[in-house]
Amino acid sequence: MTDPEFKHIAIIGIGLLGSSIAHAVKAYGGASKVSMWDVSDKVRKCAAQVVPGQVCETAVEAVTGADCVFLCTPVGVLQEVTAEIADALADGAVLTDVGSVKAKAAADMAAACPAHVHLIPGHPIAGTEKSGPEAGFASLFQDAWHILTPLKAESEPYADAVQRLSAFWMRLGARVETMDVDRHDRVLAITSHLPHLIAYNIVSTAYDMESVEKGEVVKYSAGGFRDFTRIAASDPTMWRDVFLTNKDAVLATRGRVSEDLAALQRAIRWGDGETLMQEFSRARGIRKAIIDAGLDTAEADFGRRQIDPDPEE
Amino acid sequence: MTDPEFKHIAIIGIGLLGSSIAHAVKAYGGASKVSMWDVSDKVRKCAAQVVPGQVCETAVEAVTGADCVFLCTPVGVLQEVTAEIADALADGAVLTDVGSVKAKAAADMAAACPAHVHLIPGHPIAGTEKSGPEAGFASLFQDAWHILTPLKAESEPYADAVQRLSAFWMRLGARVETMDVDRHDRVLAITSHLPHLIAYNIVSTAYDMESVEKGEVVKYSAGGFRDFTRIAASDPTMWRDVFLTNKDAVLATRGRVSEDLAALQRAIRWGDGETLMQEFSRARGIRKAIIDAGLDTAEADFGRRQIDPDPEE
Repeated sequence: MTDPEFKHIAIIGIGLLGSSIAHAVKAYGGASKVSMWDVSDKVRKCAAQVVPGQVCETAVEAVTGADCVFLCTPVGVLQEVTAEIADALADGAVLTDVGSVKAKAAADMAAACPAHVHLIPGHPIAGTEKSGPEAGFASLFQDAWHILTPLKAESEPYADAVQRLSAFWMRLGARVETMDVDRHDRVLAITSHLPHLIAYNIVSTAYDMESVEKGEVVKYSAGGFRDFTRIAASDPTMWRDVFLTNKDAVLATRGRVSEDLAALQRAIRWGDGETLMQEFSRARGIRKAIIDAGLDTAEADFGRRQIDPDPEE
Repeated sequence: MTDPEFKHIAIIGIGLLGSSIAHAVKAYGGASKVSMWDVSDKVRKCAAQVVPGQVCETAVEAVTGADCVFLCTPVGVLQEVTAEIADALADGAVLTDVGSVKAKAAADMAAACPAHVHLIPGHPIAGTEKSGPEAGFASLFQDAWHILTPLKAESEPYADAVQRLSAFWMRLGARVETMDVDRHDRVLAITSHLPHLIAYNIVSTAYDMESVEKGEVVKYSAGGFRDFTRIAASDPTMWRDVFLTNKDAVLATRGRVSEDLAALQRAIRWGDGETLMQEFSRARGIRKAIIDAGLDTAEADFGRRQIDPDPEE
């Protein structure tokens, strides 16, 4: 294994992502020491059992001596957490996060981050519907994209810090991309935030339908609904903060989707099968591109689902 | 293996479902002979290579002598197909389908079905985003629900036919439920039809966003969008017919979902985090029920995704 990019990393917030970073470092390297802290006693106790690394009693204790700090908390508390650890951050240390919204995250962290610290906001496009320290695993970041949104700082030490952080994530299996925060938030609004909002929306509506029993919704969920429940099972706190902090991009995108949906509804109401065919057929192109890019295991899952009870065939 | 429920089944339409029935019968029994036909030469040629059973040149040839006929065509052509085979249907034969909309399917088949044939509309809540004769596999119906919507016919031979058809599907691994057509269409509107409409809608909108490159949508699809593309990859013709034939239930359900989404949007616009938390938290209940009912393999898939590169741990 090549030399680790960091001597000592600190993880603040030991949820799915925080605990997965700790597992991944144990598995693939990247740092010689891992210390961590979570605001919840329950999470800290659990992490001490299942997450590799040293669980500390305070955030300050966890980040003391660290040359890279990962904030893995909900976006809404990033400024508060940064302020709490600011005085304990080492000279030249890297401060990064894993928040799903970058404009607000970058601004909040910058507001409390000392000048002698290299702030490099980041976002791994990886996750599952599970949350908590028990949900983490080492291979979460394998082949996933990791977006870094570096500040407009041109100094050489900063460029070197970005370089080291990129190498760290690549070591964990990620493909690293850099872009500015606004572009990130616009892209993620359509590829992640809105899909989650719609999933929460449909599951929640189904929950309230008088004309359909919940039992039926569950029983017949294989028709498509089930996939929405998987998305909608994601951490509510995290997603609340995502929507509150990426409000403009989400609402703008929602407007576009709503406009297009109105057209589909109209086609249904007026029995315009041609329009429906056109719209439905286009979807396969994007699907194929995702499969070709190796960004979905559906092919493999599909294969796994095939049981051949007739081996000689 | 117990005696097959049918001597000779005929499959009209050799897509994912039609070919899967043929594979399942070869694997688990249920009929001694399987004949099939598809309107497409290309599909018939392909089926002759990959689907177990006899591929015929005409629908009439395929159903002649069959004591159970499965119509696996898009819902839109059920009446036409039923009329085409009507004179060739054997006395006391069972005629069923696999259409995702039952009121229209039942009415269309009934309009052309001879009196001496037992019409029993049906719908397997099973499928993948794949289509065509190569997509079928024997285990598709394992643990999936199969809904039968029997007519209000009280005759003993009819009751016996429903009994045999149920036994056939259970032999293929399905759990069988009966309900009336309107209830089916209302339940499926929320558990299947609307989720597909929304998925097609979001994927199609993403395709048109000027502010985001298609490449970015593909790259960062793991954030949630990817699951929508999987749903939206389903057969466009089949889904066009679903929306055109279950128009009322789909538009009514869409109204409810739209109303609830407006409330979520408003909460986002006004920064009402409490409302978002409440709505997002409820979704987990339904998710848990689906997992508990063994209706999703996400747990298993999740497990499979965990690679432990450190075995001694």
